[in-house]
Amino acid sequence: MAEAKKLGGAGLRGQVAGETALCTVGKTGAGLTYRGYDIKDLADNAQFEEVAYLLLRGKLPNQQELDAYKTKLQGLRGLPDALKLVLEQIPKDAHPMDVMRTGCSVLGNLETENDFSEQDDKIDRMLAVFPSIITYWYRFAHEGVRIDTAQTESDSIGGVFLELLHGKKPSELHERVMNVSLILYAEHEFNASTFTARVCASTLSDIHSCVTGAIGSLRGPLHGGANEAAMALIQKFQTADEAEQGLLGMLERKEKIMGFGHAIYSESDPRNAIIKKWSEQLAEEVGDTVLYPVSVRCEEVMWREKKLFCNADFFHASAYHFMGIPTELFTPIFVMSRVSGWAAHVKEQRANNRIIRPSADYTGPESCEWLPIEKRA
Amino acid sequence: MAEAKKLGGAGLRGQVAGETALCTVGKTGAGLTYRGYDIKDLADNAQFEEVAYLLLRGKLPNQQELDAYKTKLQGLRGLPDALKLVLEQIPKDAHPMDVMRTGCSVLGNLETENDFSEQDDKIDRMLAVFPSIITYWYRFAHEGVRIDTAQTESDSIGGVFLELLHGKKPSELHERVMNVSLILYAEHEFNASTFTARVCASTLSDIHSCVTGAIGSLRGPLHGGANEAAMALIQKFQTADEAEQGLLGMLERKEKIMGFGHAIYSESDPRNAIIKKWSEQLAEEVGDTVLYPVSVRCEEVMWREKKLFCNADFFHASAYHFMGIPTELFTPIFVMSRVSGWAAHVKEQRANNRIIRPSADYTGPESCEWLPIEKRA
Repeated sequence: MAEAKKLGGAGLRGQVAGETALCTVGKTGAGLTYRGYDIKDLADNAQFEEVAYLLLRGKLPNQQELDAYKTKLQGLRGLPDALKLVLEQIPKDAHPMDVMRTGCSVLGNLETENDFSEQDDKIDRMLAVFPSIITYWYRFAHEGVRIDTAQTESDSIGGVFLELLHGKKPSELHERVMNVSLILYAEHEFNASTFTARVCASTLSDIHSCVTGAIGSLRGPLHGGANEAAMALIQKFQTADEAEQGLLGMLERKEKIMGFGHAIYSESDPRNAIIKKWSEQLAEEVGDTVLYPVSVRCEEVMWREKKLFCNADFFHASAYHFMGIPTELFTPIFVMSRVSGWAAHVKEQRANNRIIRPSADYTGPESCEWLPIEKRA
Repeated sequence: MAEAKKLGGAGLRGQVAGETALCTVGKTGAGLTYRGYDIKDLADNAQFEEVAYLLLRGKLPNQQELDAYKTKLQGLRGLPDALKLVLEQIPKDAHPMDVMRTGCSVLGNLETENDFSEQDDKIDRMLAVFPSIITYWYRFAHEGVRIDTAQTESDSIGGVFLELLHGKKPSELHERVMNVSLILYAEHEFNASTFTARVCASTLSDIHSCVTGAIGSLRGPLHGGANEAAMALIQKFQTADEAEQGLLGMLERKEKIMGFGHAIYSESDPRNAIIKKWSEQLAEEVGDTVLYPVSVRCEEVMWREKKLFCNADFFHASAYHFMGIPTELFTPIFVMSRVSGWAAHVKEQRANNRIIRPSADYTGPESCEWLPIEKRA
């Protein structure tokens, strides 16, 4: 009981809640692998669809399989009319993660997973259509246009997203960075949103319920959204020196600084070096002399002062910004990527399931005598 | 490590995942208490709104507080036009739990919880409007009518639900049974849907995300929906004897029989005796000579043959049926009730939070060399 007490409210940290063959996080204090493959190899060499295939189908696809998979996804990008109508009801000032959550939930009404034998098709549909959902809403709400999400020149999920958002085919560099970003965010073991998906899956609920729930958890500021907070931070400063002074002041005032450190990694976040390199390249492309140097200085200061390293989110902020992505769409991109990991976990949970039903330590009153309403204070 | 291994895939059974002052389940092998009050006292004496108040505000209301609370809820039953339009897009053959999940998610877009200081108002709104959401959709999809959910003679959540569903004020008996039913289903510690809500809450996400996720988990056949399965079972039989023969056959064939036994209770489910009594009274009222006797015989056979007792769900099936509630709306009623417990848990999680982020045992490949696509099988 003493030991059990200790765990109360502690967020199950370090407690094993199940098994997975999908991912290792921080096994050496730093590493990240998807099904045994190092994140660096994947980010340097793969397309996002290749990684999604790896997570969802259990192996890297050969060329023919990858081509077929991309063609399949390409054909699943159109939005049902009823879903378009729903998205048009959502106001411009709504939280974009609420839009993603609702879009996924509505999809579950229109294209319900009636049987687990349909799971791969339903998952592929979500992978393909999530960029359509967020950009359709965003452009309708902000510009009043109804875009045709089925028609794009791009053939990758990241490229399609940029094309639907900006109305033109992205450069090769931008499409590549989107691929890298989606790969980096695809999977991360039993994080809170993934665990949400697994708890839901453990009741044998449908895939749309699992992913809808996961989106809701990712929406929380302690989980997704750190890249948006990082953007807000770096945009405050005009020069690297200003950033240094600003950060030192924030540290002195013990303000929360997002984009640094990690619950699991102890030495560094392996995703940071990767996205930082691409952010630098994008900065060169757009001729940036502010955001990138500011970001680099933030990294130096946080390490020097606090031994805190940048996590995956920090250089994502500048990278996304250089590609013209509005800050409020940063976390929805996380969804477009992580749905691959969530869905892979749902498949895994279903394959070896027991309902997830923990216990609680009771801290309330022991026993209360019934008190008729007229006698209550 | 050996101990950790043992837990993998075991659904955290018996593992303490946090603290709660809301509920004890099966402490004596049978009992159920909400904030220290015995479920029998609550079901015999209280209205559902009184119990929701107890769970959400921490004490039983006095008459003035209860009146004010019911008046507040009464004023929150109308549906926003945008939500009506969304509900009208959802096809008649959709899963009603998908409708609930979507209705809740859309509400989060239209009336977003921007700050936790708004939580009580957002929760009360959900309590009040969930009956409106499901009945508006149901009657539009099935009858093509657009009901005005704000206008009812009834002033209780259970009464409003029946009135919106049937288009007329329910009898006192029916309203009373709905109150009892909603009380019985209101709260049940760290069950899977409640735990989903708490995991989501632990990221500091908004209340609509937490409840949307919980609805998705309740949708699973291992969680909610047992009362629907019980209905399907008892409807197969025309007499008690037929039921006995049928059940014996099912047991022999080792078929799954829903509505019996419980993961936590070992001796009996304290909710069964309560709802059974009301089912009997409803059977008398409608002159039933089939469903109730069949149900009673099922209870006898399962106890005699398997020492399995009826859980809360079993006699709910006949009770709901006698009140003219379509079977597919049984689980949405569960939502209308359990939202009080979910929301109380979210408040509790927020008040003493750490992000819920367990670990996993890794069962995948140790390390894989990168293989260029042209070299893959």
